[in-house]
Amino acid sequence: MERRVNARPRLIVIGGDAAGMSAASQARRLRGVEDLEILALERGPHTSYSACGIPYLVGKTVPSPEELISRDPATFRRDHGIDVRTSTEAEEIDLDRRTVTVRGAGEKAREEPFDQLMVATGAVPVRPDLPGMDAPGVFGVQTLSDGIAVRDFVDTERPGTAVVVGGGYIGLEMAEAFVQRGMRVHLVEAAPEPMTTLDPGMGRLVRDALVKMGVEVHLDEPVTGIETASDGRARAVVTERASYRTDIVVLGLGVRPGSDLARAAGIEIGPTGGVAVDARMRTSAEGVWAAGDCVQSLHRVSQESVSIALGTHANKQGRVAGTNIGGGYARFGGVLGTAISKVCGLEVARTGLNEREAERAGFEFETAALESTTRAGYYPGAATMTLKLLAERRSRRLLGAQIVGWENAGKRIDVLAAALWNSMSVEDVAAMDLGYAPPFSPVWDPVLITARKLAESM
Amino acid sequence: MERRVNARPRLIVIGGDAAGMSAASQARRLRGVEDLEILALERGPHTSYSACGIPYLVGKTVPSPEELISRDPATFRRDHGIDVRTSTEAEEIDLDRRTVTVRGAGEKAREEPFDQLMVATGAVPVRPDLPGMDAPGVFGVQTLSDGIAVRDFVDTERPGTAVVVGGGYIGLEMAEAFVQRGMRVHLVEAAPEPMTTLDPGMGRLVRDALVKMGVEVHLDEPVTGIETASDGRARAVVTERASYRTDIVVLGLGVRPGSDLARAAGIEIGPTGGVAVDARMRTSAEGVWAAGDCVQSLHRVSQESVSIALGTHANKQGRVAGTNIGGGYARFGGVLGTAISKVCGLEVARTGLNEREAERAGFEFETAALESTTRAGYYPGAATMTLKLLAERRSRRLLGAQIVGWENAGKRIDVLAAALWNSMSVEDVAAMDLGYAPPFSPVWDPVLITARKLAESM
Repeated sequence: MERRVNARPRLIVIGGDAAGMSAASQARRLRGVEDLEILALERGPHTSYSACGIPYLVGKTVPSPEELISRDPATFRRDHGIDVRTSTEAEEIDLDRRTVTVRGAGEKAREEPFDQLMVATGAVPVRPDLPGMDAPGVFGVQTLSDGIAVRDFVDTERPGTAVVVGGGYIGLEMAEAFVQRGMRVHLVEAAPEPMTTLDPGMGRLVRDALVKMGVEVHLDEPVTGIETASDGRARAVVTERASYRTDIVVLGLGVRPGSDLARAAGIEIGPTGGVAVDARMRTSAEGVWAAGDCVQSLHRVSQESVSIALGTHANKQGRVAGTNIGGGYARFGGVLGTAISKVCGLEVARTGLNEREAERAGFEFETAALESTTRAGYYPGAATMTLKLLAERRSRRLLGAQIVGWENAGKRIDVLAAALWNSMSVEDVAAMDLGYAPPFSPVWDPVLITARKLAESM
Repeated sequence: MERRVNARPRLIVIGGDAAGMSAASQARRLRGVEDLEILALERGPHTSYSACGIPYLVGKTVPSPEELISRDPATFRRDHGIDVRTSTEAEEIDLDRRTVTVRGAGEKAREEPFDQLMVATGAVPVRPDLPGMDAPGVFGVQTLSDGIAVRDFVDTERPGTAVVVGGGYIGLEMAEAFVQRGMRVHLVEAAPEPMTTLDPGMGRLVRDALVKMGVEVHLDEPVTGIETASDGRARAVVTERASYRTDIVVLGLGVRPGSDLARAAGIEIGPTGGVAVDARMRTSAEGVWAAGDCVQSLHRVSQESVSIALGTHANKQGRVAGTNIGGGYARFGGVLGTAISKVCGLEVARTGLNEREAERAGFEFETAALESTTRAGYYPGAATMTLKLLAERRSRRLLGAQIVGWENAGKRIDVLAAALWNSMSVEDVAAMDLGYAPPFSPVWDPVLITARKLAESM
């Protein structure tokens, strides 16, 4: 271990994506280079990229991977005085000695001392232990390197058919990408409807739209394995009911918090499997912070801990951690589970609790769903959208919202997220003064009219 | 005066548009035909139409006037048991005798008795007393009949040039309509920038966009009169600085509450000139209700009375009045001054207080404005949008928001309206869990990042 004499305090950041680099940048903003040394370790080759942009890279909506990178390591070094080491693994955290065991590509392991430590180890894709899962031709789509690999495969191998395993956001977006590349697409999902973060009736609308787009949707079909050809490459996805010949397989089965490193160090892990943090993003260990996909967060509606892997939370939490590391004061306000996605023009969004989640959290609730239009009915481009709302009995407090619709439907989720953030009643939601003009909304915005319907039914 | 023996209670509604007919319909929903007689009087030939749709009718975005009518008199009679009389003027209200003096087209005046009275007399367009204002070729655009007249004029006279007087929402939308009809368009405004409901810096962005669209924008030019040709028709609009030759003139100078009938009856009128009502939409007179453009409303941010002529308020207030008339219980929650408009792709929106309004209401405040994009910067179709926020000093409470930007910018005003509705601080606004995916937003939504900027500057 290197000796440091009269050294500046040193922050080590493990993980060079949204949470880690937001924390590093914010800490730097508050503490100059003379006050704080920052070393950031990133396992992969890239820093601070938009993982949410990967499907658009594959679909060639976005022409090059560079466009997804907001700041590269050289920029962090030059403009922010942050020593970023890519292709460098953090192997172990020693809380007593306050060191991280680090190993660069082709290097020996070494110990790096820290005064403060930021754990931003991200998420680990769910990859079921089934035959053929590691065959060539089977891809995850979690990191930018994954995305580049899929795109290169499509560019060079010209696959005619793709199977996407998993009908959540990433699965849908990858299905869209392959449709855009002119491929035949199977979407295989174990649940009875795609988008299990929505209630089944809303998922049904997504299914119908996918089918109309030409995606072959196979529901209620858990995957049992991947069949390989004689050259070892993936050839078919096998489910409990059928087998789908394919040239490429993409796994979109979600992620779990990447908290193994923290767990091994003895840092407290919460019931979701994410690192337990308080609102200032402090872990159970003195001077150790965590943020992003690897932590658990407070859900403002259920008041329970959840782990939701999303760039928005990672950015906000990283910034909160960085402010506190830098000697400032910031608290993370919690999450609502807001999410939005687009697949071939269909917009899907949700916030708060769905029925299953509300039941699990012990709420008694009522629901209302309504089909309306995104613009005044007579205005060109008025498209249908269905909005579903949940509200608690007695308190009449809004609990959640789900949207499935066409252009300009999805972002209405934000006004419902704002309503949830403020624990509004459905009556109050229905009363709000929202923007109206024929190109933007019917005179009763879908948000207002659905809230009114729910209020009247309670 | 007609005698009524064992008559049902009778509601007279004066005004057959949004507020009046919402009240009538809602009262009917709560009280069947056997319980309540409803007579609705409308001065013009149409009921329940979208006045906001008039520019789109003129621009031929909407092909026929019928599309703007949500329910015609026959439908009200047949499906709702509401006796609607169009082309019928209410000339006088007698509160002591509880009658309305009514005159149909070509008929003698008669007195109609009421038990309850709903005043929904709408707004009166501002029409300055200047030479030539009543000349043929000068049009208001307040009623559907006005809109049809403008469209017929354009269809038959094929005017090459239009002057739109007034650079507010309706002025901008009419300018767009004439541009769409292939005409040369002058927009003449007395203020230094168009859109005086925005702060000048934001209005400037609107001006720049209008100029790029080919609209000839003349600012700081109060109109002094309209020059007529030898045949009496409007030929030019004359301002303090110039004269603009034209074939048609449209006045978009705003409206004032149409409260003269109520005032003459001795019903209390508020400082804005609108009928004074409480949250249940009761006027100062027993059993007399009012709603829509003719009333004044509570502004939730300034806590002052305002008169804002908007279909959304008219619909909500009419419904509140109708619920209360029908024996139910409802209160109107007040307004935020939310408004939105689109002109040739440019989206303009605002909510809460602008700088001038905040100063007038005695607030000390800070502002921040930021240009951002509507989508992730790398996603096709990402367009610029500028968001400006105002927040109160000390309390850090959001006071208002203004948006000028391109596709998908404007409706973000709703999340800020929700924030204002709940008196959120800018810190809380910046912390909200809004929907993010590359086709919908940068990872930091413009709403969040502008709120953060304002929070950090305070």
